[in-house]
Amino acid sequence: MGEYRVIEVHEAVGAVNDSIADETRRMLSEKRVFLVNLMASPGAGKTSVLLRLAELLKGKYKVGVMEADIDAEVDAERMERADIPTIQVHTAGRCAMDAKMTADALKEYQYEGLDFIFLENIGNLVCPAEDDTGAMKNVCILSYPEGDDKPLKYPLMFEVCDAVIINKIDTSDFFPFDREKAVARIHDRNPHSEVFFVSAKTGEGFEALVKWLIEQKKREEN
Amino acid sequence: MGEYRVIEVHEAVGAVNDSIADETRRMLSEKRVFLVNLMASPGAGKTSVLLRLAELLKGKYKVGVMEADIDAEVDAERMERADIPTIQVHTAGRCAMDAKMTADALKEYQYEGLDFIFLENIGNLVCPAEDDTGAMKNVCILSYPEGDDKPLKYPLMFEVCDAVIINKIDTSDFFPFDREKAVARIHDRNPHSEVFFVSAKTGEGFEALVKWLIEQKKREEN
Repeated sequence: MGEYRVIEVHEAVGAVNDSIADETRRMLSEKRVFLVNLMASPGAGKTSVLLRLAELLKGKYKVGVMEADIDAEVDAERMERADIPTIQVHTAGRCAMDAKMTADALKEYQYEGLDFIFLENIGNLVCPAEDDTGAMKNVCILSYPEGDDKPLKYPLMFEVCDAVIINKIDTSDFFPFDREKAVARIHDRNPHSEVFFVSAKTGEGFEALVKWLIEQKKREEN
Repeated sequence: MGEYRVIEVHEAVGAVNDSIADETRRMLSEKRVFLVNLMASPGAGKTSVLLRLAELLKGKYKVGVMEADIDAEVDAERMERADIPTIQVHTAGRCAMDAKMTADALKEYQYEGLDFIFLENIGNLVCPAEDDTGAMKNVCILSYPEGDDKPLKYPLMFEVCDAVIINKIDTSDFFPFDREKAVARIHDRNPHSEVFFVSAKTGEGFEALVKWLIEQKKREEN
């Protein structure tokens, strides 16, 4: 077990989720902290993408991570080894973070002074799309091995995401993935969604993603 | 759109799920139909594994499939092309099939005379583990690209599964996957779980899985 804290949080009861989310955004915005809700299937590469992003942002920005899991701390341990301020959040069996859980986790997390916080949500393309967490942006990772048909099958996820990161492009010999079809299917769900093709393994494609994240943060501050 | 039917089902209200599940099992058992609830992350290969299983079983057994999705019919179309009797079930946004939804789907499905029905549940390692569907066996697929740490992160799924199929073993050069660790972690969650290593792409490893399925069906009938 690393230096990070481990806490357990419980979901909001009733219809208060959206107002908690708005309050979280207001408070973080005041402190110039940009919170990104990162969602994906299990094994799409959330942790590896985050490690790359933290590496690329760290010269100019302070980056922290909130690791949400039902159980275990394997991701928090990886973050800790990379010297990234991390809190491990356990969701008491719940399949996604909501706004109250995120707000409770922020209360326990020494995040002041950070520029970016990435919330690594539970691995799942269904429930995490249903609750506003209070993040400024929702981002989803889809990976080549999962296939280009996922925006057809998980409509809400691709509707609520501001950007989709398509990871593991280095595996194209193994996994045929139709880029054009994937982009068209994503835009059917949300025509404004940005799409980035990356490989967390090789580092390919991250410049455009990092540039987009920095632009979104700057836009939030103006 | 294929020849299969497309229906929408709604979840059970209140604590009746388990009794509906028991009734489904009783009824199917009487008709000598063996229902398997197949769960996995998006993209782990549920449809490809099912196509292999149907191919291997079809000499001696009649196999049907219930495809559960939030939206789309891409999997049902693949089944249909392989001449497998299929019903497409839409879950009205719900992230998993419960017993009532399964029973409702069975009512609409011409399944009499089938030996095996595979319920391809929604792609997700969280919610599908929470509800008894009425299947005789719960089976989960985990794939090499997802990583060997998933039993740590999704405890309930690996607790409720009678067997875990580890798919995409042909991608070991790309995705390091520690077989021993994975098996130990699965057995930490459920010491009785069977573990099968397969590649739906090459067909490797399916004999043992098919043998196990047939044994389970025979055991049910005695």
